[in-house]
Amino acid sequence: MSEALAPGATIGVLGAGQLGRMLAIAAARMGLRARLYAPEADPPAADVAQVTRGAWDDAAALARFAEGVDVVTLEFENVPVSTLEFLAERAPVRPGPRALGVAQDRLTEKRFLREAGARTVDFAPVEDIADLRAALEALGLPAFLKTRRMGYDGKGQARIDRPEQAAAALAGQRGQPAILEAAAPFVREISVVAARGPGGASACFDPAENIHENGILRRSVAPAAIDAETTARAKGLAARILEALDHVGVMGVEMFHMADGALLVNEIAPRVHNTGHWTIEACAVDQFAQHVRAICGWPLGDPRRHADATMRNLIGAEAEGWAAIAAEPGAALHLYGKAEARPGRKMGHVTQLRPLGAPA
Amino acid sequence: MSEALAPGATIGVLGAGQLGRMLAIAAARMGLRARLYAPEADPPAADVAQVTRGAWDDAAALARFAEGVDVVTLEFENVPVSTLEFLAERAPVRPGPRALGVAQDRLTEKRFLREAGARTVDFAPVEDIADLRAALEALGLPAFLKTRRMGYDGKGQARIDRPEQAAAALAGQRGQPAILEAAAPFVREISVVAARGPGGASACFDPAENIHENGILRRSVAPAAIDAETTARAKGLAARILEALDHVGVMGVEMFHMADGALLVNEIAPRVHNTGHWTIEACAVDQFAQHVRAICGWPLGDPRRHADATMRNLIGAEAEGWAAIAAEPGAALHLYGKAEARPGRKMGHVTQLRPLGAPA
Repeated sequence: MSEALAPGATIGVLGAGQLGRMLAIAAARMGLRARLYAPEADPPAADVAQVTRGAWDDAAALARFAEGVDVVTLEFENVPVSTLEFLAERAPVRPGPRALGVAQDRLTEKRFLREAGARTVDFAPVEDIADLRAALEALGLPAFLKTRRMGYDGKGQARIDRPEQAAAALAGQRGQPAILEAAAPFVREISVVAARGPGGASACFDPAENIHENGILRRSVAPAAIDAETTARAKGLAARILEALDHVGVMGVEMFHMADGALLVNEIAPRVHNTGHWTIEACAVDQFAQHVRAICGWPLGDPRRHADATMRNLIGAEAEGWAAIAAEPGAALHLYGKAEARPGRKMGHVTQLRPLGAPA
Repeated sequence: MSEALAPGATIGVLGAGQLGRMLAIAAARMGLRARLYAPEADPPAADVAQVTRGAWDDAAALARFAEGVDVVTLEFENVPVSTLEFLAERAPVRPGPRALGVAQDRLTEKRFLREAGARTVDFAPVEDIADLRAALEALGLPAFLKTRRMGYDGKGQARIDRPEQAAAALAGQRGQPAILEAAAPFVREISVVAARGPGGASACFDPAENIHENGILRRSVAPAAIDAETTARAKGLAARILEALDHVGVMGVEMFHMADGALLVNEIAPRVHNTGHWTIEACAVDQFAQHVRAICGWPLGDPRRHADATMRNLIGAEAEGWAAIAAEPGAALHLYGKAEARPGRKMGHVTQLRPLGAPA
C-alpha cells in the first residue's frame, strides 16, 4: 500500500464519454478528483469534472494535462499508443501502452490470446482479395471480415455468407488492414469484467450473459446461465489474460460459450466495460470504483454480487422513453447527458435487480 | 408526469456539503445537471458541480442562481426560510418553505408533530430561568435543554441530571430561545428515510437503527431489529408526517422505540439524511436518486432493500484510516473530499452489505 494514491489525489482519464463520466463519479465518491482529456467539445463527462480539450497528438496539451494528475488511465481503447507512451514519461499510466496496443488490433489481440493459452475462433490476416479468398477457403463460411483497428459497436464489420460477397466486403474496408474470423456457433456470449492491481492481485465480477443486436450490446444478464465449473473457468481465463498483459485496472473479456462447453475469447477491452454496468447496483464496489481502486493502488473491492441483475442499453431514441422506464418497478435509470439521440448512440442504460437466484 | 423535468434540466441545491455532493452525483447519473449555492469557499460539492458562492441574504446572487436552475432544493435545513421564500417567487422550491420552517425550530417541530398525530417526548419552551425551573419540575429529570434553532450533531444541547445544573445549562444557550425535552428511556433509536412526490405519492426505505455518540451519528444498521408491525407503523408515521407538511423530496424521520412498543418522533430533517446513506449500496434507487426523482416530478423509485447493510460514519481523524478501511472485505468507502479533518467533522462513511436476513 506504500504506493497507493491518497484521497485528494487526481486521476486523469483519457476520453470523456459516458465511461469517463461514470469513472469521474466513482472517483468523487472515494474522495479523489478526476480530470479528463478528450478531443471533442462538451463531452458527457464535462457535467461532473474538468475536461481538457485537445487532440491525441497535441504534445503541449497532453504535457499540461499530465502535470495536473497523479495517474493516467483511459476510458476509450482507441487512444493512440504513442499518446500513452508520451504520457508514461510524465505520470504513471494504468493500464500501460502494452494492454492498449494489444486490444487495438484484432490480429495482435487474437495472437496474444492464443499465446496466453486462450482459445479463439480461427482467423487469418487479410490485406488483399487473394488473402481473403484463401482465408475463406481455410476458415469456411459464414465468416466475418473485420477492420483490424478502430472498430466498435459492430462498425467496420461485414458478414460473408457466400464467396461472391468477398469483394464487396473487402471494398468496405477501404484498404485498411483486416482480419477474417470464422463464425462461432456459440450457445451464448458471456463476459467477465475483471480487475487487477499494480501488485498483481485480481478480482473478477461474475460472468454476465450478453445479447447483441447489429453489433451493439442490447442487454447483459448477471449471472450468465452457466454452471459453477464454467463460471470458475471463465474467471480463471480472464485473470490469466490480465496477468499475461500485466494489466492494471478493469478489463472486459468477452467470450463465446460453445455447445461443447469450450470458452473462446472473442475480444478484450482494456477499460471499464458496458457489460459491467450491472455492477453499479448489484455489487458494493462496482466496476468503476474497482477501476479507480486498481489504478490508485488501493486494495481491490469485493466483487461479490448481492443481487441478480439485468442491464439494458438505451440506444438512440429509446432514451426518449425515460419517463416510462423510470416508472418500471425496481428500475435504476442512468442517462449520460447526451443532447443528441443519434441512431445507434448509447444514451443511457437501465438496470433491474432481482433477488439472488430469482428467474431473470 | 406532465410536470416532470426532462433529462438535461438543472436542479439547484442550497448548500454544498457532502449531501449536496452526493445529490449532484445522483442527478448526473440520471442525466440531470446540478448547480449548488453556498456561502463558503471551496465546499465539498465543488469537485462535481458548479457552485455559486453567496450569502443566504444576497438577493442578487440568489436571483442569478434561480435563473439558471429548473427547481430548487436544499441539503441543509438551516437555510433561512426567507431565502426559500425569495427563491420560490422565481422557481419551484421543493421542499417548500413550510417543511423547512417547521424543522428549523424544535418547538414548532414538536407542536407540529403532535398536531399530525405523532407522539413525542414531553417538552416545554424555555425563555428564562423561571421557565426552566418550572419545566424541570413538570418533566422530571434527567432532561435535555436544547437550542430551538440551528442545532445539529449535538451542538447547542445540555443534559440536566440535577436541578442545580439548570442555571449553567441555560447560560450555555446564550440567551437564545430554548426547549426543555424530557429524556426518553428508549430501547433503540430508529429512522425512516421517506420520500414524497409533488402528486402525493410516497415511498419509505426500511427503518434503520441508529447509534449516536456525543450527539453525532456513529452507525446505522438496516434493517432495525424491530418486528413487521413496528416497521409498518414507523413507515406509516413517516408517510403521515410528510403528507401533513405537503413535503416534496426526501425527509429523515428519527424516532425513539420505547420498551412498551411506542414510537416517539424525535426530530425530522427535510432533506436527505445521514441515516439513509446505507441505501446507496443496498437499494437500486438510493435516497439521493429518490430525492432527485421526487423534486423533478419523476415516479418514485422502488425503496426495496436487496441486502442488509451497516453504515458507519468516519469522523475527524478516523478517515485517515482509509487504506485499512478500503481493505475490509465488502467495504464500500465514501470520502467527501474535505481537506481538513477537524474533530467531530464527518469526513466520509463506509457501508458493509450482508445477505438479507444475515446477522449484523
